This record gives sequence, C-alpha cells and structure tokens, in this order.
Amino acid sequence: MALIVQKYGGSSVADAEKIKNAARRIAATRDEGNEVVVVVSAMGKTTDNLVSLAYQVNEHPDDRELDALLSTGELVSSTLLAMALAAMGYQAISLSGAQAGITTTSSHRRARILNIEPRRISKELEKGSIVIVAGFQGITEEMDVTTLGRGASDTTAVALAASLKAEVCQIYTDVEGVYTADPRVVAEAQPLEEIGYEEMLELASHGARVMHGRAVELGELYEVPIQVSSSFTGKPGTLIHGGVSMEVRNKVRSIAHDLDIAKITVVGVPDRPGIAAAIFEPLAGAGISVDTIVQNASVDNITDLTFTVASGQEDEALKVVEPIAREIGARECVSDSRLGQVSVVGTGMQNTPGFASRMFSTLSEQGINIQLITTSEIRITCIIEEDRVEDAVRALHRAFRLDAKE
Amino acid sequence: MALIVQKYGGSSVADAEKIKNAARRIAATRDEGNEVVVVVSAMGKTTDNLVSLAYQVNEHPDDRELDALLSTGELVSSTLLAMALAAMGYQAISLSGAQAGITTTSSHRRARILNIEPRRISKELEKGSIVIVAGFQGITEEMDVTTLGRGASDTTAVALAASLKAEVCQIYTDVEGVYTADPRVVAEAQPLEEIGYEEMLELASHGARVMHGRAVELGELYEVPIQVSSSFTGKPGTLIHGGVSMEVRNKVRSIAHDLDIAKITVVGVPDRPGIAAAIFEPLAGAGISVDTIVQNASVDNITDLTFTVASGQEDEALKVVEPIAREIGARECVSDSRLGQVSVVGTGMQNTPGFASRMFSTLSEQGINIQLITTSEIRITCIIEEDRVEDAVRALHRAFRLDAKE
Repeated sequence: MALIVQKYGGSSVADAEKIKNAARRIAATRDEGNEVVVVVSAMGKTTDNLVSLAYQVNEHPDDRELDALLSTGELVSSTLLAMALAAMGYQAISLSGAQAGITTTSSHRRARILNIEPRRISKELEKGSIVIVAGFQGITEEMDVTTLGRGASDTTAVALAASLKAEVCQIYTDVEGVYTADPRVVAEAQPLEEIGYEEMLELASHGARVMHGRAVELGELYEVPIQVSSSFTGKPGTLIHGGVSMEVRNKVRSIAHDLDIAKITVVGVPDRPGIAAAIFEPLAGAGISVDTIVQNASVDNITDLTFTVASGQEDEALKVVEPIAREIGARECVSDSRLGQVSVVGTGMQNTPGFASRMFSTLSEQGINIQLITTSEIRITCIIEEDRVEDAVRALHRAFRLDAKE
Repeated sequence: MALIVQKYGGSSVADAEKIKNAARRIAATRDEGNEVVVVVSAMGKTTDNLVSLAYQVNEHPDDRELDALLSTGELVSSTLLAMALAAMGYQAISLSGAQAGITTTSSHRRARILNIEPRRISKELEKGSIVIVAGFQGITEEMDVTTLGRGASDTTAVALAASLKAEVCQIYTDVEGVYTADPRVVAEAQPLEEIGYEEMLELASHGARVMHGRAVELGELYEVPIQVSSSFTGKPGTLIHGGVSMEVRNKVRSIAHDLDIAKITVVGVPDRPGIAAAIFEPLAGAGISVDTIVQNASVDNITDLTFTVASGQEDEALKVVEPIAREIGARECVSDSRLGQVSVVGTGMQNTPGFASRMFSTLSEQGINIQLITTSEIRITCIIEEDRVEDAVRALHRAFRLDAKE
C-alpha cells in the first residue's frame, strides 16, 4: 500500500460542487489501495475576502492577527472536504496545521516550517481514514497560528510528503501541468511529461505560476517526486523529479515570462568595497525582494548598479535607495517600471554552445531591444520592454522548436 | 484595577462598522482603568452560512467536522476585533478557545467545559493587552475542537469570568436587558434593573431569548454578577445576581412566552412502575429535549402521560414513543403542535397566595383555554393555543401591573 499526498488549490475547491469533484478524485486514489493525505487551500477568493475584511477595520493589521484570521480559510475547506468524502462513504478526518503537527518559526505571514511531528496523521491513517490537512499554516512553540506566505499550501504538501515518506506528492491545480510556455500566450505550447527540480525552480522563480518555488526546492532536498495535474481533467500532467530521462537533457525545455518587472539603476556609484551591501541590506530589511542584480564593469572607479524588483515595489525601493545613493556619492537613481522578462530554461545549457546566441538573434530579428541579461547554469534571462514580452515568448518558442511534440 | 469580562453577540459584530463600535465600547472600559477580557460570537449570520455550506456537501455532516468548521466563525470575529482595537491604539490579542485554555468533554456540538487553564490569558493581561477570546468553542484532550452548542458564547464568557474571578461579566447583545415581557409583544414592557439568577433561569428556559440558561446557571454556581446590556445604546441594562433587593421579592417580575411547543399524550397507559423511564430514556437517547411532563391521576390503574417538546421535534419524538406505547399496552399517542406557553416568574410565589388564581382568571377572562399547567417555586406556566399566546402575555402583563415603572 503506497502513501500518496495530494494538494488541491483554491480553484479546485471553490464551491460545493468543486469540493465534491475533488472528493471523487481522492476517493478514486483511495480505491486504488493507497493511503491518502490531502492538503487543501482556502476556497476560491476566501483569503482575499478575509484580507479585505481586515483592512476594513485596520489599515495596518497586525501580522499575528492576520495569520490567525487567514488560517480559517483552510480550516473551512478542509472540514468541508472531509464531510464530502464522508457523504460518499469514505472515512475522513480534517486536521488543522497545529493538529497535523506542523511547527514553524514565529515570523508571521512568512513562517518557515521547523518540524513536522506526524503522530496524529499516522494514527488516523492507521485507523483507515483519509486525512485532510489545512494547508498554508502551522503553529509556533507558543501555540500561535502562523501562515507560510501566499500560495504556500504547495509547501505544506511537499513537506508532509517528505515527512511521511510518501511515494509522490500530487499537486492538483487549475492548469494541466507544466508547458513549454504559457498556453495563454503561445497556442502551440506543449505539455511536458516530466521536468527536473532545478529547471522547475528556475521556471517558478521567473514567472511560471504553476507552482510555488519553495515547494520545488523542498521536493529536491527531500527527493519527493511532485506530479502537477489539473483537478478538472483526467490527464496525468507533469512529473517534477530528479531522475529526468537522458534524452530531454541538454535542450531548452520551457520559456518562462514575467510582465511585472521594474528596473532601478544607481548611476555613477564609486566602486569600492561595501557599496553593494550598503544598498541591498536596507532593501532586504524593508522586505523588498530584489530579483536580478547587474553591475557594469567599472571605468575610472565609477560603476552603474542595476537591479530589478516586482513592478509594484518600485516606489518603495526608490524610497529606500535614493538616500543611500546620495550618502555614498552616486550621481542619481533612474527607474523604469514598464519592463518584463523572458527566460529560456533547460539543463546543460552552459555546456552546449549556441543557446544564448540563438536567443539573442531571435529577439533581434523581432526588433526587440535587450536591456539586461542574466544567466544561470540552466537559464538565460533577458529583460525587455513589457509590451514586447509576449512577442518574444512566441518567437523563442518557435526558434527552439518547442511546438514539436516530445 | 478591576477585571471585567465582556461578551459581544453576533449582531454586535455583524460588520466592520459594528466591530469598530464594539471596539470603542471595549476601549472605554479599558480607559476607565480596567483589565478587559472579551468573548465574541461569530459575525451576524456566519454560523448559519457555514452550516448551509456543510449541508451542501453532506446531508448528515459529522459532528467533529461541523465543530471544526463552525469554530472558524468566532476565530474570524475575534481577530477582527483585536485588529480594530489596535487601529485605535490599544494593545489587543485574539485567542482561540484552545489558546485560552478551555478544555471540554468530547461530546461534539454540545460539549461541556471541563476546565479553564487561563495561563495564557493572564500572561497577556500582565503585558497590558486586551484579550479577545473566540466564544462557543473549546478543545478536547486529544486537541480536537469542540463547540458548546448554539448561543453558548454566553457560557464561555461566564465561565471565563468565574475562572478569572472577574468583577462582573457584561453581556452585550441586541436588546437593552431583561424586560417585564418581550417588548415586541407588549409595548408597555419595562426594563428590569436587576433580577435573581433563579428567576432569570426560569425566564431563559421558558422562552425569554435574552441569554442562555446554561450561562445563568454557571453564574449562580460561581456567583458571577452578569450585566446584560445593548451594545448599541449607552443604557446600563439588567444586572443578574444573587443579592436582589428585598423589595422586589415576592412579586411577579416578568412574563415569558414561547410559541413553539408541541404536546404529545400517551393515552391509556397502564399505571405501573418503570413506565415513565421506558418512555423518557429513549427520548433522551435520541437527543430530544422534553420540557414539561404531566401525568394525570390514575383511574383503574390506567393513566394518561403528557409531555411537551419543541415544535420541530414533534415527529421525531412520535417516532420514538409510538413503538414503546404499543409495547407497554397504551391505547394510543396523540399530538398537537399548535401550542405555546406563557409563564409568570417571580420569587416567593409559592408562599404568596393569589398568584396562580389571578393568572388563571386572567386567561379565563380572555376566553383562553388552559391545556396544561406546571409550576415551580418561582414560576407558573400554562400551555395554551399558540395563536392566543401573545394575547395572554399582554393580559397578564396588565393583570400583574408590570407596566408600572419600578
């Protein structure tokens, strides 16, 4: 008997009918002779509605209280899912994050899982129950409820799968898996049967919204195979795992894009040690997540320092950086929020010549100007004008022949 | 510095504006130099909405899951109230029933409080916080969430007041206190400044919906003074306590009524020991609450046994009683669900002649037929036709001169 962890996202449990639909899928997995642990997100727009209620009574709600408030969304969906299974004749029990033994740090709104003590889960599995765990939440040593950050039910699921040594972690969502590009942008985008953890991590952190990067990282660390599928179709979706077949290595697997990029350049920075720290530590302290950082070669000990943030955080970032720029004697700060990025991702790129040049020439043929380039071992990213991003994705998808079925 | 426990009902926290209003009242109590612990119900119709969701996925939802589901309503309102207080500059923290240390029996939907371990509450009070506790809920030894029954946030509040040795437990609701009769029925009904625990208990268990009988019992047991007021007006309301002034004793204090009474009569019951047990034990086992029981004097060892239940439970009760009636050789079961009851309540009645006769003659003058009579030391109740109940209340209010201001 295999142990399988399944996770259902908010759109998969948005109303009573969808909850019953998810229950049928869970029941089928049980009928195949598996033990099943399910992690569930809040129903549809529940979390947004709770946040809006909070802001109606307090413009700056306390993080501890917000966590206690938001965590109720997953309590509701987990109990309803357990009830729907019971109505179908299956023994099922819902557990809160606390009951499931998930202890976290006390950094509210973005807590990290410290430990999972799955005693209660194991006891309920032994009794023959399907166990439904409220995603996205845990509890501190002080018994205060925490949340793991938006979209972090994926993290709960993979962490539970690791802790319970599950055979696979199945993520049910509103897309049919990982594609060669966003199918809403590229009509010919093809589903991928499998992809490696690292590739998936690069895609997730460069705009692919299929699943949460933190969960992929955790999957890699604990070697949990992750299957991403749609809860609305019967298709198998994409398997994220470590042992990706030889023949799909050394090629571009998928094009990721992100429309919400802002670029900030600190111009005329004196090139001396400690300057980068002076700029980026205060940004981190203000909770601003910096994506790409590029420093041009220094001429006459003067350099330009460019970094990107999400478009919404541009003004906040400028507020932090401008006084520092003055202090360190930089000339000025300039920003541009009408940017986006396009990334090609695939293992073995660095050892295979020609990928980068094909990417650059494809963009050039489309008359698209590249503002910044960054690379990792398995990714090349170009920052370009926002309104040319979708053209770029389509052109690159053709250039790397991703429309051919595997 | 006094410690005050306040409880706000669902209508007092029905939306963001009402939550802010409750927060202002709490803040005012704090400003007077008191330590404040607040118990809160779920917002407006939240509990009904959650129950409806449950029935959409399961016609017979499991009690444990229902408790886990329903308890979220109070988590939401308690966090929002804490946030509203923070917005006004007050230090406040919300606690779930579990965090507040409320342990209960494991009878889901109708759990009883076993113990309150208020360590966390005391710690937060010492830090200077206003503590907001989610009402209506507790936790079992196994860490499963329980609820105490509908309307039981009153019970949470009085139990906390007892455990914390609070000076007073203030119940804020949508009425202005306890009246000489329901003001919606009797325009001249007068508010009562004070009332004894026993009188209040009789009123609560005979139709007055001001507050939960269980909470009054607990108040009496632990000698917690309970102040019932409206959260929307500044009026002091009614104090329920043990030391009611001498001058208000030995008179009728209030008329209670209840429109939803069904009567079941088992006709022709052989009069022998064990018959009553044979009928009422199975009813209790089926969770049917029997109110009044009357057995007529036995003639030729044959008697009639009559009892009342809430109108909604009539069919269920008949289903239990009919097979038993056949078994014990009774002639038949007859039922009538179009009944109601009217009660006059006041201490010392039994020792003061004339109360009962005045009640019966008043009803007789109105042409109202009395079907059943029951009494306690401080109450006389008549079961009459449902559509004459309000006439009876008005006539009795006049007859006992309750429209005169105290």
